[in-house]
Amino acid sequence: MLSEFDLIAKYFTKPVTNASLGIGDDCALLRPTPGTQMAISSDMLVSGTHFFPDTDPRQLGHKSLAVNLSDLAAMGAEPVAFTLALALPEPDEAWLKPFSEGLFSLANLCQCELIGGDTTRGPLNICITIFGQIPLGQALRRDKAQHGDDIWISGTIGDARLALAHCRHETVLSENEFNMVLQRLQTPIPRIALGIALRKIANAALDLSDGLLGDLSHILDASRVGATLNIDALPISSVLEKQPEAFRLQCALGGGDDYELCFTAPIAKRGRVLEASEKTGVPVTRIGFIEKEPGLRLCNTQGELQHFSHRSFDHFLTSKK
Amino acid sequence: MLSEFDLIAKYFTKPVTNASLGIGDDCALLRPTPGTQMAISSDMLVSGTHFFPDTDPRQLGHKSLAVNLSDLAAMGAEPVAFTLALALPEPDEAWLKPFSEGLFSLANLCQCELIGGDTTRGPLNICITIFGQIPLGQALRRDKAQHGDDIWISGTIGDARLALAHCRHETVLSENEFNMVLQRLQTPIPRIALGIALRKIANAALDLSDGLLGDLSHILDASRVGATLNIDALPISSVLEKQPEAFRLQCALGGGDDYELCFTAPIAKRGRVLEASEKTGVPVTRIGFIEKEPGLRLCNTQGELQHFSHRSFDHFLTSKK
Repeated sequence: MLSEFDLIAKYFTKPVTNASLGIGDDCALLRPTPGTQMAISSDMLVSGTHFFPDTDPRQLGHKSLAVNLSDLAAMGAEPVAFTLALALPEPDEAWLKPFSEGLFSLANLCQCELIGGDTTRGPLNICITIFGQIPLGQALRRDKAQHGDDIWISGTIGDARLALAHCRHETVLSENEFNMVLQRLQTPIPRIALGIALRKIANAALDLSDGLLGDLSHILDASRVGATLNIDALPISSVLEKQPEAFRLQCALGGGDDYELCFTAPIAKRGRVLEASEKTGVPVTRIGFIEKEPGLRLCNTQGELQHFSHRSFDHFLTSKK
Repeated sequence: MLSEFDLIAKYFTKPVTNASLGIGDDCALLRPTPGTQMAISSDMLVSGTHFFPDTDPRQLGHKSLAVNLSDLAAMGAEPVAFTLALALPEPDEAWLKPFSEGLFSLANLCQCELIGGDTTRGPLNICITIFGQIPLGQALRRDKAQHGDDIWISGTIGDARLALAHCRHETVLSENEFNMVLQRLQTPIPRIALGIALRKIANAALDLSDGLLGDLSHILDASRVGATLNIDALPISSVLEKQPEAFRLQCALGGGDDYELCFTAPIAKRGRVLEASEKTGVPVTRIGFIEKEPGLRLCNTQGELQHFSHRSFDHFLTSKK
């Protein structure tokens, strides 16, 4: 059986270039680039809460890092490094090999290197802490949305929730449709390049992990503003488009795991937002605007107010099993 | 029932001063002090593997942070901030309140602030990632031990293992004795001040978490040297002193959870090591020396070679339940 040290050596020790010192000492050492600040985020994924116990380990390796990279993207930070703490029921190489491959495949793509962590025995739990850097003063925060800003989101939303609905037998998709939306749930692509391109353009940003309405509320609360969204403008996939309206809205407005960026920017910068989108190849859509009046209102293209009852994903109120 | 957001707000959100931005955004922001590098370490503590499920939550809060601070101490780093990712079976305030009190009590003492993290539902799991800073080039690493160095350790070793032995009915201590050694197991004091004082004095250092022999071997392997230890010189408590010799050695040489520093320093710096000890109020003891010949040898004060079979704590080979 693999010992902890063998396991780390075999699957998780890679040469580092961003860091001064990687795995193997009490701490890793990072030398920050002068003139930058460090963005730090931590996410814990638990078997049975965030993913099905039989989830493909390669996809899980990808997703574990992707959700953290998405937090960097939401701040406009460039990925630098991450730590991985992993609790496993047993050191199972048939699981570890594909998990580490999925993890490092995305890590290499984003030039984000593993510099330390921990492995231990326990119920499957994956905790990644990620480090990025941003030029001083250029971080995209939640508390800087301004009255009059447009509200934008990248890509399309709701597909991950739709895939989950199929798994839970809440709806039935064709095999083709299911495969299309499943990859949004299992292997989300963090919007790193777009986040970086939006520095000095967006006023506020976050990533959509718990559902648009709940997540956008965080921007509104932190910035002490309100907003109106046009539900007819929400960018959704052709697969979700076919679903009945109420369920479609539930997926798009309340579903989690989208890992798209939601950001606000002054009307005067619409051209620059579209340039950032074009430069990075990530579509963006204007879905509403920031207002002085607190609260979040939904309307249709005709400007009629719409009602929608939602609750964002909360790890202690709902279970994603 | 407390939601995730309520729980974070109530127990884990404190004002930050070291960080530019704390809890509440996608990432926290740290602005490193110019001329320093950042030391980063991550530890995951799992119920049933690292602690008994009924462990007092206040002590667990202390220990979860202490083991990470100890990693900073071992690099000579000054604590700055940490993230906490916490999986809980349910948001139990009777557990959360004392846990957060134990955590923040030590955090405040060490001026190390909580800047972010995650809370989720799942089997009890505590993952802390810690950040410290060190002037460039002054980190105490494992790979710089030199032939001829003295080997030192701080404090006393073996008491945490002795406490565990009592809990496991491997030995029987009086109530007084048990309480003395139990605090070494439950509320270890990280040797932050000593680690900082040893900058530019020690050649190599680490903290003793898995047992002296196993941990020291990491220094020897990384530095490509060997060592001889004098087992009669090992600093142990009056409680451990009373145990039979074989068991005493097992606790001192093979027991984990000591969280003392083990470091090597040139003979010419003995005076400076003792000054660092006096200045920080932490006793240090010379227990051996580094040699060219690979391997780790044990002798007594008479210089006679001793034999001892050990195995350091490995989370996948043994169980600490």
